[in-house]
Amino acid sequence: MPLGTLYLFPVPLAQEAEHKSYTSFSRTVLLNLREFVVENEKTARKFIKQTGLDIPQQDLIMHDYGKHAREKVDYKQILRAALLGEDMGLMSDAGCPGVADPGALVVAAAHRLGINVVPLVGPSSILLALMASGFSGQKFAFHGYLPIDKQARAAKIKELESQAKREDQTQLFIETPFRNNALLDELLKSCKAETKLCIACNVTGKDEYIRTYTIKNWKDKKPDLHKKPTIFLLYVNAN
Amino acid sequence: MPLGTLYLFPVPLAQEAEHKSYTSFSRTVLLNLREFVVENEKTARKFIKQTGLDIPQQDLIMHDYGKHAREKVDYKQILRAALLGEDMGLMSDAGCPGVADPGALVVAAAHRLGINVVPLVGPSSILLALMASGFSGQKFAFHGYLPIDKQARAAKIKELESQAKREDQTQLFIETPFRNNALLDELLKSCKAETKLCIACNVTGKDEYIRTYTIKNWKDKKPDLHKKPTIFLLYVNAN
Repeated sequence: MPLGTLYLFPVPLAQEAEHKSYTSFSRTVLLNLREFVVENEKTARKFIKQTGLDIPQQDLIMHDYGKHAREKVDYKQILRAALLGEDMGLMSDAGCPGVADPGALVVAAAHRLGINVVPLVGPSSILLALMASGFSGQKFAFHGYLPIDKQARAAKIKELESQAKREDQTQLFIETPFRNNALLDELLKSCKAETKLCIACNVTGKDEYIRTYTIKNWKDKKPDLHKKPTIFLLYVNAN
Repeated sequence: MPLGTLYLFPVPLAQEAEHKSYTSFSRTVLLNLREFVVENEKTARKFIKQTGLDIPQQDLIMHDYGKHAREKVDYKQILRAALLGEDMGLMSDAGCPGVADPGALVVAAAHRLGINVVPLVGPSSILLALMASGFSGQKFAFHGYLPIDKQARAAKIKELESQAKREDQTQLFIETPFRNNALLDELLKSCKAETKLCIACNVTGKDEYIRTYTIKNWKDKKPDLHKKPTIFLLYVNAN
């Protein structure tokens, strides 16, 4: 018997962004699935409800891997339906499963078990920020969170700045949203005047804000990023 | 008078993949645009036709920046409509504008000119491959093309392999499609037996093929990648 397919469903990044977030193909696939592996059952059910598709919530089986410590997740168990030939869906809390979230471990398990994996098109704040930055998309690196320690963070920022220049590579990173303003201050202090910084905030949201300036030019137009999901991008070579 | 917005339109990656490639929001935006900056006028017109939207081709104004040497492009001229308050669209030849294509220079010019930039959700083979690989999406780097010279390429592969291990970072790269099989041979020769390789081929196409194995396990199931658009991903830590 052939195994099922695990479809990777991106989930909207912002409120009221459903129409910006999924394709008609994703809707068709979703209509035929009843069993899901999810990072957050509540978000996943809300997402399915918001699609407006006629899918009875009580028929849905949700395996919430986000509730458990990662080493405790029994991947063979939560992917059992796929092993028995059923197609399944994987959803993260927001954005693309496997990108800056623990969904990658579920996908890795699917590969080990021989389950076919099909990624669906959807919103990634990292990719949308890269597109909209105007920086090099020929070479780029996403670093996740920078160190929390002030000195280590300042050193990391300088390292990313030299890496951007040396390798002509766009550097992307994030911060816990309540520390965004502190990170911005640090970037304005540590980087060279001509280094370019793109700030991509609330991507796909109603108040989406994406701007690119040099460090020098940011200094007199600092936005308030407190508690707003933000991607920071550094680039050095002249564009 | 406020300036127009430059919408960044991803274009399908594969034949007959339109329904997998754009959102209803993108269709709504597209209906209202008449002037575009494009990497390839023919592809752009074909894409608009395939959406099935009622947009008369003769009404469309296309500024084809792909025809010119990059230093010769007059960005102020091709973005003139946006400077006069009209919304415009930017389309690359395939995939997301600005990611591994020269559209980034158009976006950079838009930022310099104060034009608002809005990225739309769509297919990126790099991001879809990352999602489907099962590798770390917490940290990753895209390197574009590896060196052509055999020795330099082998050295670069070893460097990427150590970087993957040292920084727990997924390494992504591409090759000119007619050299894909040669690159695969080189990867199987240069990398350690337990290093993981994901091959993502014809992403979103009817014959999409995405598999992750260790180098050792790839050796007896080498796919034919000749002339097929492929993303290669290396990862080392245990998943």
